[in-house]
Amino acid sequence: MKYPVVGMVGGGQLARMTHQASIGLGITFRVLAQTPDDSAAQVARHVHLGDHRDLDALRAFAAECDVVTFDHEHVPAAHLRALRAEGVVVRPGPDALVHAQDKGLMRERLTRAGVPCPRWRHVATAGDVAAFAEEVGWPVVLKARRGGYDGKGVWVVPSSEEARRLVEEATARKIRLIAEEKVEFTRELAALVARSPHGQGVAYPVVETVQVDGVCREVIAPAPGLDPEHAAAAQQAALKIAGELDVTGVLAVELFDTPAGVLVNELAMRPHNSGHWTIEGARTSQFEQHLRAVLDLPLGDPSLTAPYVVMANVLGLDEPDIYGGYEHCMARDPGLKIHMYGKEVRPGRKIGHVTVLGDDLEDVRERARHAAAYLRGEIT
Amino acid sequence: MKYPVVGMVGGGQLARMTHQASIGLGITFRVLAQTPDDSAAQVARHVHLGDHRDLDALRAFAAECDVVTFDHEHVPAAHLRALRAEGVVVRPGPDALVHAQDKGLMRERLTRAGVPCPRWRHVATAGDVAAFAEEVGWPVVLKARRGGYDGKGVWVVPSSEEARRLVEEATARKIRLIAEEKVEFTRELAALVARSPHGQGVAYPVVETVQVDGVCREVIAPAPGLDPEHAAAAQQAALKIAGELDVTGVLAVELFDTPAGVLVNELAMRPHNSGHWTIEGARTSQFEQHLRAVLDLPLGDPSLTAPYVVMANVLGLDEPDIYGGYEHCMARDPGLKIHMYGKEVRPGRKIGHVTVLGDDLEDVRERARHAAAYLRGEIT
Repeated sequence: MKYPVVGMVGGGQLARMTHQASIGLGITFRVLAQTPDDSAAQVARHVHLGDHRDLDALRAFAAECDVVTFDHEHVPAAHLRALRAEGVVVRPGPDALVHAQDKGLMRERLTRAGVPCPRWRHVATAGDVAAFAEEVGWPVVLKARRGGYDGKGVWVVPSSEEARRLVEEATARKIRLIAEEKVEFTRELAALVARSPHGQGVAYPVVETVQVDGVCREVIAPAPGLDPEHAAAAQQAALKIAGELDVTGVLAVELFDTPAGVLVNELAMRPHNSGHWTIEGARTSQFEQHLRAVLDLPLGDPSLTAPYVVMANVLGLDEPDIYGGYEHCMARDPGLKIHMYGKEVRPGRKIGHVTVLGDDLEDVRERARHAAAYLRGEIT
Repeated sequence: MKYPVVGMVGGGQLARMTHQASIGLGITFRVLAQTPDDSAAQVARHVHLGDHRDLDALRAFAAECDVVTFDHEHVPAAHLRALRAEGVVVRPGPDALVHAQDKGLMRERLTRAGVPCPRWRHVATAGDVAAFAEEVGWPVVLKARRGGYDGKGVWVVPSSEEARRLVEEATARKIRLIAEEKVEFTRELAALVARSPHGQGVAYPVVETVQVDGVCREVIAPAPGLDPEHAAAAQQAALKIAGELDVTGVLAVELFDTPAGVLVNELAMRPHNSGHWTIEGARTSQFEQHLRAVLDLPLGDPSLTAPYVVMANVLGLDEPDIYGGYEHCMARDPGLKIHMYGKEVRPGRKIGHVTVLGDDLEDVRERARHAAAYLRGEIT
C-alpha cells in the first residue's frame, strides 16, 4: 500500500486529535512523544519516545516518516534546518516556524508585510520601555520573545518602576523582550487558515475567543455580530501571513478586534485551541486539514455545519474524577460532544474540551459552559 | 484517573472506527486482533493478539478490560457464557448475541415476539424445502443458520432439483438450513438503534441500503420518500427486538420494504455498515453510541446533521493504489469525507467508504458514487 507516513513531533492533545483524524485518511501517523503517557501516546499505535530538542532523536524519528510536522513550536529551528539539509520534508519549514517561535521576528516580519499589528518595539533596557511608553502611554505590555504561552511570558506593566524590575529580571535570565501598546480591544478573535505547499489556501469562519487570565475559556464560531469588514480583514491578514511566511499546514492568528479594525496578537503554526470547534462544527476539522496541507493534498471545505458552534475548555480544578461527570452531562444534553485528553488533572491545565452546536447562540453557550463547569467540578 | 477500559474482540474496520470514537471519550480502548496488521491494530495503542475462538485468549484479554464487546459475531456463545460466569462484563451478552449468530434462533424468537418477518421454516431435507415451496412458491431462499455474511451463506433456489443438490451439500458439510419466502420488496432498509443496560433506547433515522450481489454498495439517510408508517414500524421493530433480546450496544436491523409493510431480514449486534454515515451525518456516531451503550452512559442524540447523507462503500477492484485517487477526489469535492481501513485491496472487499452530506439528494448521491468509483479505479 502506498499511503504516506506523517510524523508529528510532540505528544500533546493536538497530536492526539490529529491521530484521530489520520485514521479516516488511512495514512500512517507517528508521534514523537516524551513519555508513553503523553496524551497522543495513549492512543496511537506508532509512538517514538524522544526529546524534541535532541537532534539525533529527531533524525531517527524523521527516518520513519515521509513528512514531519509539529504539535508545538519548541523544536529548535537549527535542528529543523539540519534535518531539511539532510532531505527531510519539514512542514511548516523552519523559516516559517521561527516566526511562531520568536515574537520579535514575527513583529518585524508582519510590520514589513504591512499586516496591522499593535505598535511595538524591541526593548533591552528600562529606558527603552519608558521611551516607548512616552509614545503609547502606560501601561505597556512586555513579552518574552520566546517560550511564552497561555498568558505566560506576558506582563502588563503599569509604570517605569515595574518596567525596571521586570527588565532586570529578564536580563538576568537572558530573556529578550519586546514592548507592545496595550490595545483597547472590544474582544479577541482568531482566524484559522490552512495553506498547502502548492499554495492553496482556505480560511475558516473567524471566531471569538473568550480568555480568562490569559487562558482560552471559550470559542464561539462564528464570532457573533462581527462587522463583515473586520471578519474579511482578519481572514485576509491570516492568508497573507500564511503566504508571506510560506506556511504549510494550519496557521492560527489571534487578533484584537477594535473599533478601528483588527490587529494581530499572536501566531501558531499548527492546529490550535481556537480551532477545536471544527471537529464537529466544520465540514473539515483543523486536524484533517493540517494533515491534508502537510501532505500537499487538496484542502477541505472549512464551512460551518451549524449556525453556531461553541467550544469550552475543560480546565482542571480540584475534581480528579472527570469521568464521574459524564452521566450528568450526557443525560442533560444528548447533543454534547466531549473530548478528553487523557491528562492528569492539575489546576488550570487544559484537560479536555466540550463542543455544542445549534441555532440559538445563548442556548448553545449555556450548554457548553455548563458541561465544562460540571466536568471540572466547579458546579455539582 | 478513573476512565473505564473497553475491550473489543475483533480487529476489523468496526473496531478501527470505534477506537477513533473512543479517543474523544478519554476512555481506554483495547482490541483483540488476530494479527498486528488488522485494520484496528494499525491505529490503536492497546492491541492484544489472539484468536477469538480461543477461550484462554479471551480470558487474558478480558482480564484487562472493564467491559468486553465485539466487532463481529464469531465468538462462540459458550465462551461468552464461561467468561460471564467468571465475572466478565460481556455486552451484548451471549443470550442476545446468539440471535445474531444463528438465523434459526433469530427467526424463532422474532416470530414468538410478533415481529414481522418473511415466512420461514426450519428445513432438514429437500422434502422440507419442497413442502415449504408448496406454501410460498418457488423460488425460495435457503440460508445457512450460521456464518453467512455479505450474501454468503444465502442461496436463491428456483426448483426442487436445485434444493436437493443444496441440501445434500449442506448436510455433508453439517450446515443447518432455514428456508424463507423470496420477498418481493421495493427496496431494502436498515433501522439502527442502541440500547443500554439500564434500558435506554435511541433510534436513528431509517436508511435505504442499496445492495449489489448481496453486498452493500450505498446507504442513503434518511430513506428517501419512505412512508412514515413504514419508518415508524421499522424503528419500533428494532427497538422491540433490542428490548426483547436484552441487547446492549448498537443493534442494526436490515429490513425489506414492501407495499404491505416492513419485514425483518437480518440482525447485527454491533456497529454496522448501514450506520457508517453517522460519523459525520448524525450528532452521535454509531461508534460513540456503541461505546456509550456498553458503558451504560446516557445515549447520544441520533439526529441527522444534514437533510441527506449518502455513504458509498469503496470495494476493492484492480487498482491497488487507492491513495493515488485522493488528489482527484478531494480537489473535485472539498466536502467529501474519506474513510479508508488500511486493508489490502482485493476484488469485492470492503476497503473503505466515503460520505457526502447536503440538501440535494441527487447531487449528494452522485458525489458519493463518483468518489467511491474513482478510488477503486472503476473510472479514471
